[in-house]
Amino acid sequence: MIRRVLMMATALGCLTGAAQADALRDAALQMFKPLPSTVPAVKDNPVTPEKVELGKALFFDPRLSASGVFSCYSCHNLATGGDDNMETSVGHGWQKGPRNAPTALNAVLNEAQFWDGRAEDLAAQAKGPIQAGVEMANTPEQVVLTLNSMPAYVAAFKASFPGEGEPVSFDNMAKAIEAFEATLITPAPFDAWLNGDDAALSDQAKAGLQLFIDKGCSSCHSGVNVGGHGYYPFGLVEKPGADVLPPGDKGRFAVTETADDAYVFRAAPLRNIALTAPYFHSGKVWNLSVAVEIMAESQLGESLKPEETAQMVAFLDSLTGKLPEITVPVLPPETEATPRPTSEVTR
Amino acid sequence: MIRRVLMMATALGCLTGAAQADALRDAALQMFKPLPSTVPAVKDNPVTPEKVELGKALFFDPRLSASGVFSCYSCHNLATGGDDNMETSVGHGWQKGPRNAPTALNAVLNEAQFWDGRAEDLAAQAKGPIQAGVEMANTPEQVVLTLNSMPAYVAAFKASFPGEGEPVSFDNMAKAIEAFEATLITPAPFDAWLNGDDAALSDQAKAGLQLFIDKGCSSCHSGVNVGGHGYYPFGLVEKPGADVLPPGDKGRFAVTETADDAYVFRAAPLRNIALTAPYFHSGKVWNLSVAVEIMAESQLGESLKPEETAQMVAFLDSLTGKLPEITVPVLPPETEATPRPTSEVTR
Repeated sequence: MIRRVLMMATALGCLTGAAQADALRDAALQMFKPLPSTVPAVKDNPVTPEKVELGKALFFDPRLSASGVFSCYSCHNLATGGDDNMETSVGHGWQKGPRNAPTALNAVLNEAQFWDGRAEDLAAQAKGPIQAGVEMANTPEQVVLTLNSMPAYVAAFKASFPGEGEPVSFDNMAKAIEAFEATLITPAPFDAWLNGDDAALSDQAKAGLQLFIDKGCSSCHSGVNVGGHGYYPFGLVEKPGADVLPPGDKGRFAVTETADDAYVFRAAPLRNIALTAPYFHSGKVWNLSVAVEIMAESQLGESLKPEETAQMVAFLDSLTGKLPEITVPVLPPETEATPRPTSEVTR
Repeated sequence: MIRRVLMMATALGCLTGAAQADALRDAALQMFKPLPSTVPAVKDNPVTPEKVELGKALFFDPRLSASGVFSCYSCHNLATGGDDNMETSVGHGWQKGPRNAPTALNAVLNEAQFWDGRAEDLAAQAKGPIQAGVEMANTPEQVVLTLNSMPAYVAAFKASFPGEGEPVSFDNMAKAIEAFEATLITPAPFDAWLNGDDAALSDQAKAGLQLFIDKGCSSCHSGVNVGGHGYYPFGLVEKPGADVLPPGDKGRFAVTETADDAYVFRAAPLRNIALTAPYFHSGKVWNLSVAVEIMAESQLGESLKPEETAQMVAFLDSLTGKLPEITVPVLPPETEATPRPTSEVTR
C-alpha cells in the first residue's frame, strides 16, 4: 500500500513537472520567438549570395574609414560577440564614441538600430559610423571614390545590383553590408528549448526564465531578440547613478525631441549578452549579475536575492548562440586611384 | 623544299622556345624555391593543431593590447595581404609606428623578422608590437593576467603545451602565434611555374623574371620568399631622396651598432608585394612600378625602360598567392578578473 501511494506520488510528480515545463514553454512562446532557420528576408533588399559576399568584404574593409584603421569589424568584432568589449568605442584620432557599441549579431531582427532607434534598419545604420567624425570619419563621396578605384569591387557591385545604372553607390554599400549582417544569426540553447528540446536548458536556466517573466523583465525584453524593439525610460522606478546613466545623454529625446523621451532607450536585445560586456549605453557595468540587479532595481523596483540573480544569469547564458562560420574575405588591392588613408583629425 | 625548311625552322623555334623556358626555370631554381606543400616546421616549436587554433585566437584578440583596440590582425590584416596598407601603422593613442608593417604571410620563411632583422623568429617578433608603446602598449604581466582570467584560454594553453608546469606564459603566447603564422603560406603562380607548369606564367611575367635575374635584383631578393634574408644597404649605388629614405632611420645600425650597417635593411620578401603597398620601410611609395624603378636606380644604377618595368611588375604579380581559408575564431568572453581596456597614454 505504502509502495503504491509512493508510486502514485512519483507519477503525479512527473506529470506535474512535465506540465510545468509545458506551461513555461507556452508562456515563453507568448512573448519570445525562436530564431528563424533561414536567413531573414530584408525589406527592399533581396539577400543574394553575391550581395552577402560583397557585404562581407565591405564589413571587413578598413579602407571604408578615412584613416584606414577602422572597419565595421573593428567595433563589431565577430570574434568577440559582435561588439568591441569597450565602454565606448575608440575611433578616428583616438576619440571616444558617445555610447557602447551594440552587437551586430542578430541585429537584423531588431525593430530599429542604435540605442535610440534612430536608424530604421541596418542599411541606414551602416551609414552612420562611416561618416561619424569620432568613428570612421569618412564621407560618402570618398567611399564611392575608394570603391570605384578597385575593379574587383566594381564588378562585385554590378553582380550584386544587376541592372542598376550606378551600382557603386553609398546606398548600395549600405545595402550589401545589411545583407551580410542578415546572415549573422546565432541559434542558442534557448532556441532549441523553445523548439521543444527540454534538455537544452538547465533547471537553473528554466528557473531564471520563469523569474524573467514573473518579475516583468519580459515586458520590455521580448520578441525574437529578447529585446531590441520598443522604447522605455531607463530608471522607470528609480534612476541609476550618474555613472551608469550620465545626465548628458538623454537617449531618444535627441531623436524625437519629446519631453517624454528623455532618458528613453531601445530595450537592449539580450542575445549573446554574456559575450558583450560592458553593459548599458554607457558601458559602465562589466558584470552581468550587477547589470541584472541594476535593471531589477531601476526598472522594476525589485531587489533580487543572490540565487535569483544567479538563475537569471543562467537564463541569459542560454542566449549565447553559435556564430555561423565566417571566412576572412580576400579584399581587392588598392590602385593608383584609391584615396590614401589619412590619420589627420579635421573635424 | 621551302615547306620543309619552314617546318624545320618551326621545329627549331619550338625547341628553342622550350629550351629557353627550361633554361629560365633552371636559372630560377638556382636562386628561388617554391613554397613547401606542407606547413613549415618551426625551430623549437612543434606546430600542432591545438597550438595553431590557440595562436589564431591570440592573433585575432584585441585584448592583447592595453586599449583593447588592436590585435595582431589590425596591422597584419589577413584580408589585405597580411599588412595594413598604411605608410606606418597607427597604434595606441593614435601614435604612428616608425616603419611600414611587413606582411605576416609566409613570414615564417624569412631568415629573421622586422625590417632590420632584430627578431630571430616570429615568436620573438610577436612580443615586440604587444609591448611597444606606440603599438599595443601592453606588458607581459598584463597579458598573462588577461589570458589567465579566461578559463577557455587556460585550457587551450594546457592542450597546446602539454606537460608544462606553467603553460600560460608570454613566451608560450608568442609560440602559439608563431605556430598559427606558420600556416599562412600562400602558393602563387610563380610556385606552379617553378614546379613545372609552363602555363602558370605569362610571357610578360617570364620576361620580367629574366630581367629580374639579369639586372641583378635576384642577388638580394632570392630564396623561397624572393627576399627576406640577407641585409643590404638601401642606396647601394645611389641614395634615394630623404622622403623615401628618411635620414633618421639608420636601419640595422640600431641592431649591430656597426658603421657598415647604416641604412642597411633586410631585403624585402616580395611574395604578395602587389597586395602590400605602400612600399619600403618608410612606406612612402604607393605605386609598384615606381618602387621597381627606385630599386633599379638606387641599388643597381639602372634606368629601366617602361616596358621593362611593366615586365618586372608582371613577374611580381605572379608572386600574389592564395591565402588558406581562415575562419574567424570565437574568442572566450572576459571575466571579472580580466584587466579592463584603457585608452590612456602613459608612455
